[in-house]
Amino acid sequence: MPATTEANPGPAIDGARLLGRLRRLAEIGADERGGVTRLGFSPEDLRGRDYVAEEAARAGLSARVDAAGNLIVRGPRRDGRPVLMMGSHLDTVRHGGPLDGAYGVLAGLEVLQQLAPRETAMEPVLVAFANEEGARFPCPFYGSLAVTGRLDRGPDEIADERGVTLREALRACGGDPEALESARWRPGSIAAYLELHIEQGPHLETTGTTIGVVGGIVGRTVLDIEVRGQAGHAGTTPMKARADALAAAARVVLEVERLAGDDGRCAVATVGRLSVEPGVTNVIPGLVRMTAELRDGDRERLRAAEEELARRLAAVEGSGVRVTAEVSDRIAPVPTDPVLCSVIAAEAGELGYSHCPIFSGAGHDAQIVAALAPIGMIFVPSRNGVSHVPEEFTADAELVAGARVLLAAAWRCARTAAPAWGRIR
Amino acid sequence: MPATTEANPGPAIDGARLLGRLRRLAEIGADERGGVTRLGFSPEDLRGRDYVAEEAARAGLSARVDAAGNLIVRGPRRDGRPVLMMGSHLDTVRHGGPLDGAYGVLAGLEVLQQLAPRETAMEPVLVAFANEEGARFPCPFYGSLAVTGRLDRGPDEIADERGVTLREALRACGGDPEALESARWRPGSIAAYLELHIEQGPHLETTGTTIGVVGGIVGRTVLDIEVRGQAGHAGTTPMKARADALAAAARVVLEVERLAGDDGRCAVATVGRLSVEPGVTNVIPGLVRMTAELRDGDRERLRAAEEELARRLAAVEGSGVRVTAEVSDRIAPVPTDPVLCSVIAAEAGELGYSHCPIFSGAGHDAQIVAALAPIGMIFVPSRNGVSHVPEEFTADAELVAGARVLLAAAWRCARTAAPAWGRIR
Repeated sequence: MPATTEANPGPAIDGARLLGRLRRLAEIGADERGGVTRLGFSPEDLRGRDYVAEEAARAGLSARVDAAGNLIVRGPRRDGRPVLMMGSHLDTVRHGGPLDGAYGVLAGLEVLQQLAPRETAMEPVLVAFANEEGARFPCPFYGSLAVTGRLDRGPDEIADERGVTLREALRACGGDPEALESARWRPGSIAAYLELHIEQGPHLETTGTTIGVVGGIVGRTVLDIEVRGQAGHAGTTPMKARADALAAAARVVLEVERLAGDDGRCAVATVGRLSVEPGVTNVIPGLVRMTAELRDGDRERLRAAEEELARRLAAVEGSGVRVTAEVSDRIAPVPTDPVLCSVIAAEAGELGYSHCPIFSGAGHDAQIVAALAPIGMIFVPSRNGVSHVPEEFTADAELVAGARVLLAAAWRCARTAAPAWGRIR
Repeated sequence: MPATTEANPGPAIDGARLLGRLRRLAEIGADERGGVTRLGFSPEDLRGRDYVAEEAARAGLSARVDAAGNLIVRGPRRDGRPVLMMGSHLDTVRHGGPLDGAYGVLAGLEVLQQLAPRETAMEPVLVAFANEEGARFPCPFYGSLAVTGRLDRGPDEIADERGVTLREALRACGGDPEALESARWRPGSIAAYLELHIEQGPHLETTGTTIGVVGGIVGRTVLDIEVRGQAGHAGTTPMKARADALAAAARVVLEVERLAGDDGRCAVATVGRLSVEPGVTNVIPGLVRMTAELRDGDRERLRAAEEELARRLAAVEGSGVRVTAEVSDRIAPVPTDPVLCSVIAAEAGELGYSHCPIFSGAGHDAQIVAALAPIGMIFVPSRNGVSHVPEEFTADAELVAGARVLLAAAWRCARTAAPAWGRIR
């Protein structure tokens, strides 16, 4: 960034305003146990979006909801100019924290508020993507998938646990399920996408680093695993005559752990869900359903880990127990744009912040937008590496630092008429 | 049994009537998946009891419901004479089979119908005990506990999942929650108790034996186990930084299995229930709740197995994972009365049925009544050793054989003025 003078100051983050908005937003959906619950398309989510739209309006920006329920905030329209998109999401998991998603949106709002009045070669735009978490409607990244034209199910094919369809939810939030195609951005219209987020892991805190320059987002494979044995009376069925689905499932859980742990076949591997049928104290379990989630930054390693797990599942079978696994979700690892990474690293250095390359173990809207535009991501530290919990926390100074780096990177990009980045896809 | 002549025939089971009643009863609570669901005190259970009461009335017997909801069927009252009680239960587990409990009640009705018109030294009485399974109201053996004066909770302290109290359920079935003490039988009033039941295990079928003479009922210890770790993001928390409650719980499941399996510390050991929190695909489990159930026929071995499990649970702890276990139920093994066993074995032999001593791995009302009277139990084969499932099955000939042995044993006992058995308790 060129040096600024008092007569011609560069844009600057209003840290107090940003932190104040974060506190206010965290009150929307605050639950009785100290967490935040704004499930995608819930009344709390809508109130959170309304709050951001109101703040945008107070700042002289315009906010509208697109057909897929994304909240889109813009300054004065600069038709024909390429867009510098910033974004994240406002929905949370159940009983989550105050920062995941919300931080990126409100920092983006602050940056947009600073850049909108200025003459730039690109138009900065902020998007709060709908339903990133997918905690209520099981279609995570819904908004960013719509923006990139990659929705694979119609709004009647997706429903929450009570049977409310996404069609109804879209209508209620001001979206238009009849015109979802209109939410799509055409290729080339977005020159760059920047997302600021908490790390959600321990690396920055452990290494005492303020800014993480994200080199890529892990790929993720989710397997739905069924272990079928034979239910039976827990008192009368001899141990040798059993086909205990839970005992076999326990072996699966340990194989999944070992895959990423001692064996290092992928970065992480987790069994997060497991249910037992019939689930009665005195009945040998006949059926266990579980998920196994594998993540790695390298596509080939991830595939190899999947194959190794399949072999290990087969080895668990026997004595009347059958194990089947089906891939329910597979997202390839996504690299960020190297030029945008350089810009972020350079601006963090200019501002005097320690920074390091980092890999994102969590998924982000950025990885979806990557199909349409070069992406860059900025991380700030997460205390104890936790997120999706009420204890999710980043120090105020670090929250402001992240926003300052986002602003500096966006300002650098937006001023450039012919960007040096722009990977063609 | 003394030889009978055509002029003075002994009582005989009407096999067709017994099998017909079993089929009719199985229609009450028949569910759409081929099973039978008559949860204790449910409308289906009450209809099942009404059916038995109607059949009793048609046979000239009287049926009444005691304060605790037990259905008590008697012939002509023979005041002052000791009672020969026969019993079992009509309630089932969810999606259970047609025979568990029901068989003992309907065979007992058939025996009572045969014995009631005859002059006997003891009065035969049939009891269909309330809520043996405890599948809806979590107080298994409720009726037999009431008969023996061993209820440890009041009717307002027990409720189903919807909050309906046992007080309301008792009223609805004709019981009297204000007068539960009246359901108690005084010590000495029951000279002997006989229960006929399906084996629920594979031993009789495997050995090709028709009649099992039950030498005792296993003891059972149930532990509620909690495994507490730390929930966290499944993508961003490195494997080494995890305190995965489910991975630790998987080790507990395998330790429980090994306790009875390879290590043979008790007869059987089972984890039947296991639930995971938060139970989300991409969140490391922070809390697992599970049950472990240990059974053995020997009191000392069962205690030693409990202690060994406690040591193994402690060994699973570590890396931020804590394991706690609490005994939620402990029932000591109960031997049957040796003299009643001899009577059953002798009568089975007289009738030409193969028979063998057997141990009951399942719990029965008999083990509760044992506090008040000498007990005897008769088993018939269970196909594939299964019970509590729709596939629960015993061949017609074996069902009739069991009833014939029950009748012969009851007849032998009832004729005897001064019984040779009668262990004082």
